[in-house]
Amino acid sequence: MDENSRIKVIPLGGLEQIGMNMTAFEYHDSIVVVDCGLSFPGDDMLGIDCVIPDITFLRENVDKIKGFVITHGHEDHIGALPYVLKEINVPIYGTKLTMGIIEGKLAEHELLDVVKRKVIKFGQSIHLGEFRIEFIRTNHSIADAAALAIHTPVGVIVHTGDFKVDYTPVFGDAINLTRFSELGKKGVLALMCDSTNAIRPGFTPSERTVGSTFEHIFAEHTKSRIIIATFASNVDRVQQIINTACKYKRKVIVEGRSMVNIISVAREMEYLKIPENTLISIEEMDNYTDDQLVIITTGSQGESMAALSRMAASLHKKVHIKPGDTVVFSSTPIPGNEKAVSKVINELYQQRAEVIFQDTHVSGHACQEEIKLMYSLIKPKYSIPVHGEFRHLKEHGELAQSMGIPKENVFLMQSGDVLSIGTEEAKITGKVPAGSVLVDGLGVGDVGNIVLRDRQNLAENGIIIVVLTLEKYSNQILSGPDIVTRGFVYVRESENLIENAKNVVTNALMDCLESRNADWGKIKMVIKDSLGEYLWKTMKRSPMILPIIMEVE
Amino acid sequence: MDENSRIKVIPLGGLEQIGMNMTAFEYHDSIVVVDCGLSFPGDDMLGIDCVIPDITFLRENVDKIKGFVITHGHEDHIGALPYVLKEINVPIYGTKLTMGIIEGKLAEHELLDVVKRKVIKFGQSIHLGEFRIEFIRTNHSIADAAALAIHTPVGVIVHTGDFKVDYTPVFGDAINLTRFSELGKKGVLALMCDSTNAIRPGFTPSERTVGSTFEHIFAEHTKSRIIIATFASNVDRVQQIINTACKYKRKVIVEGRSMVNIISVAREMEYLKIPENTLISIEEMDNYTDDQLVIITTGSQGESMAALSRMAASLHKKVHIKPGDTVVFSSTPIPGNEKAVSKVINELYQQRAEVIFQDTHVSGHACQEEIKLMYSLIKPKYSIPVHGEFRHLKEHGELAQSMGIPKENVFLMQSGDVLSIGTEEAKITGKVPAGSVLVDGLGVGDVGNIVLRDRQNLAENGIIIVVLTLEKYSNQILSGPDIVTRGFVYVRESENLIENAKNVVTNALMDCLESRNADWGKIKMVIKDSLGEYLWKTMKRSPMILPIIMEVE
Repeated sequence: MDENSRIKVIPLGGLEQIGMNMTAFEYHDSIVVVDCGLSFPGDDMLGIDCVIPDITFLRENVDKIKGFVITHGHEDHIGALPYVLKEINVPIYGTKLTMGIIEGKLAEHELLDVVKRKVIKFGQSIHLGEFRIEFIRTNHSIADAAALAIHTPVGVIVHTGDFKVDYTPVFGDAINLTRFSELGKKGVLALMCDSTNAIRPGFTPSERTVGSTFEHIFAEHTKSRIIIATFASNVDRVQQIINTACKYKRKVIVEGRSMVNIISVAREMEYLKIPENTLISIEEMDNYTDDQLVIITTGSQGESMAALSRMAASLHKKVHIKPGDTVVFSSTPIPGNEKAVSKVINELYQQRAEVIFQDTHVSGHACQEEIKLMYSLIKPKYSIPVHGEFRHLKEHGELAQSMGIPKENVFLMQSGDVLSIGTEEAKITGKVPAGSVLVDGLGVGDVGNIVLRDRQNLAENGIIIVVLTLEKYSNQILSGPDIVTRGFVYVRESENLIENAKNVVTNALMDCLESRNADWGKIKMVIKDSLGEYLWKTMKRSPMILPIIMEVE
Repeated sequence: MDENSRIKVIPLGGLEQIGMNMTAFEYHDSIVVVDCGLSFPGDDMLGIDCVIPDITFLRENVDKIKGFVITHGHEDHIGALPYVLKEINVPIYGTKLTMGIIEGKLAEHELLDVVKRKVIKFGQSIHLGEFRIEFIRTNHSIADAAALAIHTPVGVIVHTGDFKVDYTPVFGDAINLTRFSELGKKGVLALMCDSTNAIRPGFTPSERTVGSTFEHIFAEHTKSRIIIATFASNVDRVQQIINTACKYKRKVIVEGRSMVNIISVAREMEYLKIPENTLISIEEMDNYTDDQLVIITTGSQGESMAALSRMAASLHKKVHIKPGDTVVFSSTPIPGNEKAVSKVINELYQQRAEVIFQDTHVSGHACQEEIKLMYSLIKPKYSIPVHGEFRHLKEHGELAQSMGIPKENVFLMQSGDVLSIGTEEAKITGKVPAGSVLVDGLGVGDVGNIVLRDRQNLAENGIIIVVLTLEKYSNQILSGPDIVTRGFVYVRESENLIENAKNVVTNALMDCLESRNADWGKIKMVIKDSLGEYLWKTMKRSPMILPIIMEVE
């Protein structure tokens, strides 16, 4: 196969877990990057704020990069932009709402003036180096989601982004199946399709079905205050809550920082229509009776600092849950959040609220029948399942085969794999660096495995610091050893233990210092060993032991 | 109501969460305690091994306590016994397998010789002070589970323990519905019934249905090695795996410490029938081909140190997953474990194993129709839902009302509540201390909120220690300030930062020491403030800052 006639597809994240989506497409001296997402830290990433993809490959090829093309405005597709743009300052392309949300992020990072960006309409194409990229309307749990047809000299690659098929969307039009069909008829080289729900049979219901549920809830709870928690970015969901509120003549209060932000962006851009005199501020709440109020809030995932969690725990300053309140979770727990959500539900019940969490949510991702529909229309030569854990990609690969794609044309890739696609053949031809970079405060990548391991150890066992001052040359103890602990035991109740530990260390030190050939390394080891052994024997615990030696002339 | 004619029901744990079950029953000078369980630490209980109930109430009434009556051998019903018996040494009563498992625990804690215990048969009663306690057979996910009819001078209280209705159990007989019916006919004062599945409609299927699934799996995978992960204590499940293995002429290997332990106890007591020449040791595995082998293992919850997780991560010394292996999760993830289980499944798929996790498990707890059946037979005057989070108790309370119990006769209790039941009336009359005691190594209760808060802080931000030696009286710096960090940044790559931090502290110290009225408290505060401000400004991080001052004459 001629190296010059191949396009390289290089996923740099998003294949091992859901999150951190980023894929580079390379042809000759042109690279375009689709999406630039973050992921939220795993349970073992203590103290980490977020995780972004390793961009070594982009850094090394920065001169070729023509731009970032963004499919939609969710964090796992745009969240790494502010970090990556600081190094790779190239233009960003996306649809209107997507760009509105990105601009909010850029403003926070003071990047608004230095990054070029362009809003693209559905149906419009942009030329980026050797590529022409066409934006095609899809449906998702956020408005303005796009699939991309990436036209290359070798052929067309369709990237669905995150999508579902919604024939009756709340805002805008249904997914442009006609265009996918046209592309399919002309011939598509490869399909990169959302795998999130690939293990779920059937069709994802329309967003409107949630609207009907809201109708029922409002009709049945005419006396009580209604509080609804959902994802801030699901503007269509918010629209449906507002529509129902208006119908039932209730005022709407928006609570939670991210909810307030997104609603203000969406309203400004006219993705959200709120009749006048509908929104009121939380301060005006007391002017209305319970049956005149709806509160839309963050916290549907049980996040401990979000508004609903604070209400449930009686920590919210302005909203106090009362008996009879109707609380609706318009969401399902993301895997890993089940316990946190349960905790909030229990707290709400204990305050005698009614809690509703059934039929109040639909997914934003395509189930098996929708994925098959895409294969049926697009008829790709190659299948590259994207956006999912390995189990989802695998199931997606089997769906693709059931739709007639030969097994050898299905590529279950890992981040960093380089897939070279020619007209005749496609194969994995290499590997570029890919992985996770941890962000902690302003530090990007300065917390690695050693630091995380220390944090884990500190978290589980606490730390004991042993300090002593030695006279230079003579190695005589001038002060100490003193013992200070944090996260180990409550010292006031364990004075004896600390006193005994000090004696153990002192005795061990005496023996060691007398031997005269004691260097600091040796002394530190004696402290660690003697104290470690003593604590394990008496308490079956092994805190981190940190000896510090000060020297005075 | 005459104080003397009332029985007091005092749940000491198990009502806020699933776990830590323990209930005291008091009449005159007699107390019996039903169950004595632990719970596993929450995500915020860093480094904690397990959590046991506060026993202040038992300690203060130790002379009245006649014994612990145990319903079945699960950790959340027996796990706290070794800790509690060290203070409250009274006899234990339970069925045969339950006692066998308890004895294993007592042996580990060297309590076997000092604690009295008695094995009780189903149908048998024991007299404990003013109480007569009758053991009634039920079904559950462990054999030998018992409900208790607690006969008191005021009336009969039925405590179901954890149960389901299984008309075709794998081992032993079906639940003794006849006896519940007899008791109901004579009149039952109160029913304390399992609420775990109170939010699930319908009936929990029989354990045997899982056997049929195993049949299908074995029949369809005649070529591959089969690895099945399940709960160690589910002896009936293990029995069904062994039965199917024998039928398909496969040898069985048992892997994972807790699995080996329970199987050995159950086999010794004849709760598990294993034909000769069925079990082989893991060392003999190489003598057989894949189609001749079944491995039963721990790790069905994705626990990181369990055998299956180590196999999936290629960390297991003796079992290496190979393409074509069939791995069965005979379990569903307990809330909170979903992500860990997903991780293991992904790893198994990546090693090209086939993974099966559907229809391979049934619950051990009664669903709504079974709970209703109990109310229908027992016809209690009062309903006290037990064993569940508040949301489960609440739903259970509504089921009870649907079965004709008046709302005011349903008691949704919290741990520590004292419910006084007389013949004419029942009401909450008081509160005793109840709560969680944290166990860390050999320390019971020496890790409290302050220590946990420190651990949380250490986990998220790490620690910076600033040490300096001062001359006594003159307050001259003899050495330092030195800076040592753990869990903060990787120092080798951040030398500049540490150097700058040292300068910031030194400058602040100089100003402070010159002022002469600097006591240690002041000096420490200056160190914390100056360094804290510097780090927040430059890094947006706030590690724990620990100043240590050494003094030399």
